[in-house]
Amino acid sequence: MNTDITISDIQSAAERIKGIAHRTPVFTSHTFDALAGTNVFFKCENFQRGGAFKIRGAANFVYSIPKDELSRGVVSYSSGNHAQAVAIAAASVGIPATIVMPADAPKSKLDATRGYGAKVVTYDRMLGNRETIGRKIAEETGATLVPPYDHPWIIAGQGTAALELLEEVPDLDTLIVCIGGGGLISGCALAAKALRPGIRVFGVEPADANDTYLSLRSGSRVEIPMPLTIADGLRSTKPGELTFSIIQKNVSDTVLVSDREIRETTRFLLTRMKMLVEPSGAVPATALFHHKLPAGLGKTGAIVSGGNVDLEFFQTIWD
Amino acid sequence: MNTDITISDIQSAAERIKGIAHRTPVFTSHTFDALAGTNVFFKCENFQRGGAFKIRGAANFVYSIPKDELSRGVVSYSSGNHAQAVAIAAASVGIPATIVMPADAPKSKLDATRGYGAKVVTYDRMLGNRETIGRKIAEETGATLVPPYDHPWIIAGQGTAALELLEEVPDLDTLIVCIGGGGLISGCALAAKALRPGIRVFGVEPADANDTYLSLRSGSRVEIPMPLTIADGLRSTKPGELTFSIIQKNVSDTVLVSDREIRETTRFLLTRMKMLVEPSGAVPATALFHHKLPAGLGKTGAIVSGGNVDLEFFQTIWD
Repeated sequence: MNTDITISDIQSAAERIKGIAHRTPVFTSHTFDALAGTNVFFKCENFQRGGAFKIRGAANFVYSIPKDELSRGVVSYSSGNHAQAVAIAAASVGIPATIVMPADAPKSKLDATRGYGAKVVTYDRMLGNRETIGRKIAEETGATLVPPYDHPWIIAGQGTAALELLEEVPDLDTLIVCIGGGGLISGCALAAKALRPGIRVFGVEPADANDTYLSLRSGSRVEIPMPLTIADGLRSTKPGELTFSIIQKNVSDTVLVSDREIRETTRFLLTRMKMLVEPSGAVPATALFHHKLPAGLGKTGAIVSGGNVDLEFFQTIWD
Repeated sequence: MNTDITISDIQSAAERIKGIAHRTPVFTSHTFDALAGTNVFFKCENFQRGGAFKIRGAANFVYSIPKDELSRGVVSYSSGNHAQAVAIAAASVGIPATIVMPADAPKSKLDATRGYGAKVVTYDRMLGNRETIGRKIAEETGATLVPPYDHPWIIAGQGTAALELLEEVPDLDTLIVCIGGGGLISGCALAAKALRPGIRVFGVEPADANDTYLSLRSGSRVEIPMPLTIADGLRSTKPGELTFSIIQKNVSDTVLVSDREIRETTRFLLTRMKMLVEPSGAVPATALFHHKLPAGLGKTGAIVSGGNVDLEFFQTIWD
């Protein structure tokens, strides 16, 4: 497989996903700017279809599958936003989707995934391995496995978020993106560097989900224990192979934020900017709000990656 | 004073407030449409400068004051969003603003109003009358009184919300707006009827703040006891004189919603559409969500008037 991803791949992805993915709005706030000490343009993927950026990569992947394979359906494993995105994309072209999810996943997430028309296969988080189960279903049914991040089609799809942001604000000096498996930052960094070579891209991770932070410093992919951060979308233990090589070449540095800082920022985004952002989605804003990044950022883009929160989360952000 | 308000007054207002008021986004939701049974386009004034549509009327008013009078400043009375809007508009042209607010108003609102550079004069809600105090300050200082709704400049300013919505979605069949004093619905109805004569405009009020509902049925302005609804921005006791005459001519009907229904809708807007809407702002969406309006609405616009809520409110919406 050719793993080179060019700006034209990202532009093709943008064409491909038109109609299924929303063009999300870009928000600004005088008060946030004053507190962060720089001008920030938020690309609001919390308002995206399915509540997160994931539909961009999932739809680009599903729509790129050759026709004869596509009819056999898709299979994916995820406890979060990726599962719902694959279900939505599969439903849009009328093919079956099977999603492997932990049996103890929140009922709301299981219901939502079924609501989009997907078949949900549950497994015991302590006994089974979702990736193995997913591969087995793919082999048995001939369905195509849709990986969550480490694939050129996924990465090109996620890059369309930065493509749209730079169409709207072409003179950005800096772009800030959260890092889980690295699909979003890889795609966004490739798009941003192609459209504006001088732009600096920074990654942000929760303090205990610092696999990319450590990997960048050691020069190779480091594996960490399962993180416990409230930013559940960023609980990755090891960067992807492809995503890490893109991050190494295109990302200036990675900084870390604490769960307390994430909660504070989420509260600001909700009460002042009136938008609901999930903890993972608030991580780039947190780095700006708490001055974790070098001075002189200039005009700064920040990707707000999603807005899917559990009800319990509302209680915790006021503490 | 000429109280005729034309589309050209509203278009001039739009020019006048460019730069101080945001052009707010228009949101849609497949899930909301399915539940409401019609296609809805939300004009999101909760993302407006100051968190509500009020800046439109306040800025249009302040910028319409003749220059020699303007330098003597402005005075206004409000416990809510109008006060902050007047403070922002006054600060933008460097003139003094005095806001009369109840001494027991939430500290966050008093602080926010002072934060915008306004002088806050407090009064005892049981003993004083804010309108009388406001008029006295205006007489003593020569400042211009900025009324909250019953004035052509205010109404023309508020109408710019519908003007923008119809620029974006020109083929609306129906427009839904909340009613407090009636400034927003008056301006929006005038704009909508001028741009699209066949459009139907409906007003929505909380069940116990039904002053306009009763007035329309009796044919003249009815006064009701102070309402207790959670939709604090709509606790009016009597429609304005000018606003009521505009509503009589341009609004098809008014429907009522309960506080429980408002809370349910607010929860949906927050958890599914990821936006924080204050109870008053959720009232048009509530009428759609709970099927209070006649069938056959067609393509429907709904004004989401604001997003300023107290922290306590978050607790109540889960009940």
